[in-house]
Amino acid sequence: MQNQKIVIIGGDAAGMSAASKIRRELPEWEIVVFEKSPHTSYSACGIPYFIGGVVEDKESLIARSPETFIQKYNIKAHVMHEVIQIDTAGKKVLINDLNSSKSFTETYDQLLIATGASPAIPEIEGINAKGVFSLSTLQSGIELFNFIERHTPKTAVIVGGGYIGIEVAEALLQRKIQVTLIDRASYIMETLDREMSEEICRTMTDAGVDLRLGESLKEILSSEKGYASLVKTNISEIKTDLVVLGTGVKPNTQLARDAGLKLSEGGAILVNNKMQTSIKDVWAAGDCASSYHILKDEEVFIALGTIANKQGLVAGTNMGGGEMFFQGVCGTAITKFNDLEISRTGLSETEAKKMGIEIVSNTISTTNYAAYYPGNESLKIKLIAKKKDKEIIGGQIVGGKGSAKRIDTIVAAIKAKMNVYDLAMLDLSYAPPFSGVWDPLQIAARTLM
Amino acid sequence: MQNQKIVIIGGDAAGMSAASKIRRELPEWEIVVFEKSPHTSYSACGIPYFIGGVVEDKESLIARSPETFIQKYNIKAHVMHEVIQIDTAGKKVLINDLNSSKSFTETYDQLLIATGASPAIPEIEGINAKGVFSLSTLQSGIELFNFIERHTPKTAVIVGGGYIGIEVAEALLQRKIQVTLIDRASYIMETLDREMSEEICRTMTDAGVDLRLGESLKEILSSEKGYASLVKTNISEIKTDLVVLGTGVKPNTQLARDAGLKLSEGGAILVNNKMQTSIKDVWAAGDCASSYHILKDEEVFIALGTIANKQGLVAGTNMGGGEMFFQGVCGTAITKFNDLEISRTGLSETEAKKMGIEIVSNTISTTNYAAYYPGNESLKIKLIAKKKDKEIIGGQIVGGKGSAKRIDTIVAAIKAKMNVYDLAMLDLSYAPPFSGVWDPLQIAARTLM
Repeated sequence: MQNQKIVIIGGDAAGMSAASKIRRELPEWEIVVFEKSPHTSYSACGIPYFIGGVVEDKESLIARSPETFIQKYNIKAHVMHEVIQIDTAGKKVLINDLNSSKSFTETYDQLLIATGASPAIPEIEGINAKGVFSLSTLQSGIELFNFIERHTPKTAVIVGGGYIGIEVAEALLQRKIQVTLIDRASYIMETLDREMSEEICRTMTDAGVDLRLGESLKEILSSEKGYASLVKTNISEIKTDLVVLGTGVKPNTQLARDAGLKLSEGGAILVNNKMQTSIKDVWAAGDCASSYHILKDEEVFIALGTIANKQGLVAGTNMGGGEMFFQGVCGTAITKFNDLEISRTGLSETEAKKMGIEIVSNTISTTNYAAYYPGNESLKIKLIAKKKDKEIIGGQIVGGKGSAKRIDTIVAAIKAKMNVYDLAMLDLSYAPPFSGVWDPLQIAARTLM
Repeated sequence: MQNQKIVIIGGDAAGMSAASKIRRELPEWEIVVFEKSPHTSYSACGIPYFIGGVVEDKESLIARSPETFIQKYNIKAHVMHEVIQIDTAGKKVLINDLNSSKSFTETYDQLLIATGASPAIPEIEGINAKGVFSLSTLQSGIELFNFIERHTPKTAVIVGGGYIGIEVAEALLQRKIQVTLIDRASYIMETLDREMSEEICRTMTDAGVDLRLGESLKEILSSEKGYASLVKTNISEIKTDLVVLGTGVKPNTQLARDAGLKLSEGGAILVNNKMQTSIKDVWAAGDCASSYHILKDEEVFIALGTIANKQGLVAGTNMGGGEMFFQGVCGTAITKFNDLEISRTGLSETEAKKMGIEIVSNTISTTNYAAYYPGNESLKIKLIAKKKDKEIIGGQIVGGKGSAKRIDTIVAAIKAKMNVYDLAMLDLSYAPPFSGVWDPLQIAARTLM
């Protein structure tokens, strides 16, 4: 294979995974990366823990700096460089150097689009006030952190009770800020079913979060100096020193769209299982690209670091002349609120019913360790299976220490198309400090047998 | 189906699981259980934690007492009753009431043998001295506990560095007893490979255990009052106030053997996947019965509570006229020593090589949480796959909080015949308080890709 020039748009998980993979296999190829933010390869998922002060040094969130890529890996990583146009016919991109505001073009043999996702910002009055933040890039996290340091807000309104919302709630409580969380839905963490959400609501309320469900953001009023000071919902008015938006993300696909690339249902760049887009020599990976959902049997938009890393590895392998296939996702996610662990995978009951799948499901309450082992905490598992053949299609876990990571076993079971009987009979590990003799997963599976 | 009379020999995990299952399905059937110890349905695995004082009340180890079985479930559970003969032609058993020393016979329509396993006691001089204990029944645990309470031993020698050995070492250290552990092998926890064992040795030594490897028990000398006072090995002499044997277990099969039942390779009662023995209407389950090993493709002897419960459920289902199959084991086990978690499943490198399987394997060192997340601890994973097609056949984990239960995902992967690539690409969960963006399992899998 002749030496090629690879251009990568986006220097975070997907882009740099691909770059690193290509470099390992092909030391001679030229690899150029353009990243519009000041940072490469950082842990976006770590940002709430940096805000909360759990992770003390923001530098520790950066896996590899642009300098490291340049000096150690011979990957030309340019930060503060925004690609503003892709010319797939001419095989070149137009870049704007954000430091100098000068533009220039760069040709490529193969192009990877790894532009990530951005917060979906509600279009309401006052949304651009000072003191209104959304979290996406490391830079956005640093700005929120600095705001808290400088202005020591006493109160905050978080909009949206998804993963970001509850992680930021934990973080702000740790900073001694009084938190109100509003969600337009009637329960938070909507990727779980209602009965699982209730456990989380209780824990958050007990920790002092003022939860307002069924309330949607209508307007943000500002002080004379332009700082957000009052949040208006459809129901109430909440005085606040800080607003954090956790209202979801959307894939960054403007560039791809302008270049004529096909998009998927959820608006992400449509890719096949090799991460090829609809145009030759153009690849996409990470939050901006679609992911095949093995249970929904369609390309979906899910923005998660795990997926971005895997897709980057797959893209890099294939761009470098190897062969690797992305094996799809099943909607796995995990988080925690203080000591309450939360995870889910597959289809929720709500999702399954929407898809017209006849299901059986059950929610069991047990303990994380053997019931007699001290320090045991409650653990709730919901398991969802097809009614027809009892094939497992979803699981949700809420509980104490060691609860949530059990979801991975359900992930493997779903991937392997196991039924509830297979799961109940798996040779899972047991000792009293780790579980009861029937692991909670198996207790849940048995109730569906 | 006509009402039947079920006789069950052994009132612990397997026996009572079967009894309970039959009772749930068939309220009219007569179920009689004979248990030679004073207890039914207790957690043998919890005994070390009771000895160590972590579990304060021995009663909490008992899931259900004989009275509960009798009153609540109409299961005639007789403790202190030893079955001394099985007549499979006459379909009856001979029982010795250990309280009255009277014998009587009981007929059955179907018989379940669930006699468990007993410690393998080395045949050496002095083994019957006072102060020498082995752990098997709850009763044996109570006796050791009482000995410690009454005699407050300052020193102890543990013989054998398997699961029991290291759990008892932890327990005795908690009781402020100075522990010497001898093992005739050159490393402890021989179901793991050597490099994984080293981590455990280090932790035990750091905790104050005097580990003596390559030393085998030769003789126990006693004081004038008949208490064990000195342990002689092939190499050294160790003064001691207490000896605990963790020298393995053997299936209790004398009754079955006398009745002419076929035994498996490891000496357990040979059963098929419905838990039927070689004689009609005689079933076996639990520690005394063989288990099909899905990787070894043979019936093996493994004594574990998880397996006993599953086999009991399977036996009970089939005895009651239902149909259920035991799906086999893959050698999963888990334990901990203080804060070090340990687990394994499948074949070790040593086992695989003995079986003539060409393998690839790798051991990686990483952290349980994201590397930047505070409180993260080291985690070591060894993954073993077939060289030919990279099918996963074994895994071993040693590490800090949340490490060991990850073995369950490998168990599911082995059962589903996944290869290392499948595991690396699984949609496993990730958030910084739970793992790095590539779960340690996937880092290990990637190194074998």
